[in-house]
Amino acid sequence: MGPGREFDLVRAMLLRWGEAAQGLGDDGAILDVPAGERLVVSTDSSVEHVHFRREWMSPAEIGYRAATAALSDLAAMAARPLGMLVAISTPVSWLDDIPGVADGVGEAASSQGCPIVGGDLSRSSELVLAVTVLGSAIAPARRSAVVAGDSIYVTGTLGGSALALEALERGESPDPEHWMRFAHPPARIREAQWLAANGAHAMIDISDGLASELGHLAAASGVELRIDAGRIPVVRGSTARGAATSSEEYELIVTSPVALDVAAFEREFGLRLTAIGRAHDADRPAVLAFRDDVRVDLGLGHDHFTS
Amino acid sequence: MGPGREFDLVRAMLLRWGEAAQGLGDDGAILDVPAGERLVVSTDSSVEHVHFRREWMSPAEIGYRAATAALSDLAAMAARPLGMLVAISTPVSWLDDIPGVADGVGEAASSQGCPIVGGDLSRSSELVLAVTVLGSAIAPARRSAVVAGDSIYVTGTLGGSALALEALERGESPDPEHWMRFAHPPARIREAQWLAANGAHAMIDISDGLASELGHLAAASGVELRIDAGRIPVVRGSTARGAATSSEEYELIVTSPVALDVAAFEREFGLRLTAIGRAHDADRPAVLAFRDDVRVDLGLGHDHFTS
Repeated sequence: MGPGREFDLVRAMLLRWGEAAQGLGDDGAILDVPAGERLVVSTDSSVEHVHFRREWMSPAEIGYRAATAALSDLAAMAARPLGMLVAISTPVSWLDDIPGVADGVGEAASSQGCPIVGGDLSRSSELVLAVTVLGSAIAPARRSAVVAGDSIYVTGTLGGSALALEALERGESPDPEHWMRFAHPPARIREAQWLAANGAHAMIDISDGLASELGHLAAASGVELRIDAGRIPVVRGSTARGAATSSEEYELIVTSPVALDVAAFEREFGLRLTAIGRAHDADRPAVLAFRDDVRVDLGLGHDHFTS
Repeated sequence: MGPGREFDLVRAMLLRWGEAAQGLGDDGAILDVPAGERLVVSTDSSVEHVHFRREWMSPAEIGYRAATAALSDLAAMAARPLGMLVAISTPVSWLDDIPGVADGVGEAASSQGCPIVGGDLSRSSELVLAVTVLGSAIAPARRSAVVAGDSIYVTGTLGGSALALEALERGESPDPEHWMRFAHPPARIREAQWLAANGAHAMIDISDGLASELGHLAAASGVELRIDAGRIPVVRGSTARGAATSSEEYELIVTSPVALDVAAFEREFGLRLTAIGRAHDADRPAVLAFRDDVRVDLGLGHDHFTS
């Protein structure tokens, strides 16, 4: 891929992105952070054979999912998107599909009102999409903000992503509901704004699975999180444990010192919001799950964290 | 590479970076853009076998060069660094060398006062370093700001990067001076500040080669750039054409409507600053090179641009 072909491909992507792409053409993009707000930035790579397989998803779905994984980190900080940069490293065998990948990236960005402001195109031996997102918030949500007494909530219904992946690995067609959760998860940007405005002060998004992310929250905040396993919102066909270990869900876990108005949230977004437990003081950070007051294992493998 | 090993590697990198790494631990990094300044952001991927070969450079040199390529885009916008994010996609065979790569990234970032604020670690089949840099400037320098009558300047001495690469490809040891230009080019961040403060209003950094970057400037500004080939600063052992086509030099091309104080610049930075030509009005963007008033080919292949 020489400069000519590279520039042709960049032009093709810009045409497809249309007004979703802004301010390209200099060595860097120029953005303005709203006065009084802080800048939030995150980068996330999606790698062929690790994060996706060509035979499982369309190019647009691969691009959509890579961009959503990055946007979800903005949601987890309760930040509004300012812009996205997309570094694509591609083998020659993918060149004809890159415009499709760009369509998916553009769809995810546009659906969240996020302009594409920059990028980079390289050759490689397998497709790597490194997506960087920038956003802003007056007070970004943190993992370390959980306080004893907080109620713990989770958005949506979990477990579909894992069930779809398991079906694909068996060579079967996933249930359409599970497939949508796997191939087309939305980043919860607007939901996070609402939750932050209504009292939630700690957040994390579910990329590694509910149980694992609860562990990150507990470790960062130095608290013990007690979860009612029976309250975990489970997709049809899954279990509490399946839901707790399903990765790349891109739903949010939030904690709040005040009770959140679940009915108002569900009316606003058509999405479940479920209280699943409470934070407690503890000598060591921990996540403990109970069903009818009996300890159960959510599949985390260990319940204590040292860092 | 499971989460355990991944987290261990991240911890190892953080230890090596020490105070150079700041604010990690949330889904995104939180930064503040100085009041009255604009945010500048750029992303740049370095891919094994394309941008570097393991047998040619140490892990630290590979990391240093990847970070410098990104930092150089901040220099080209005359921006001060705010932070860097490093997305590493690595094969298992590179795992033991990732701390060395991290050392090089950290050295490049620290030398420019740029904290490392975030990153991402994935598995892959070849090493890909996607480096995103954020900076700020009151008035970022642009490619499109060249005006007829501007003098064109270039920093440093060109051609060493290409000569080093050619020696490596022949299986020979490069001349040490050329090798330093190839393996250890500094991003011209502070030089760009000085140049912008003293009158330079258009800038670009040399990643694709002087001739090619002049073409980008001409196209973005809609001007004709006339270059005196005899004035191009050439490294010992190279030629004007060799210097004009040598890529990944990371020197700056700047244009200014006022004469720059070359002696003051060279005293300040111990680095050459050379006037190599002038911008002119033109019906079509172009780069023309002359030696003793005779047109010469700088190796660009074509002199006119349509976009």
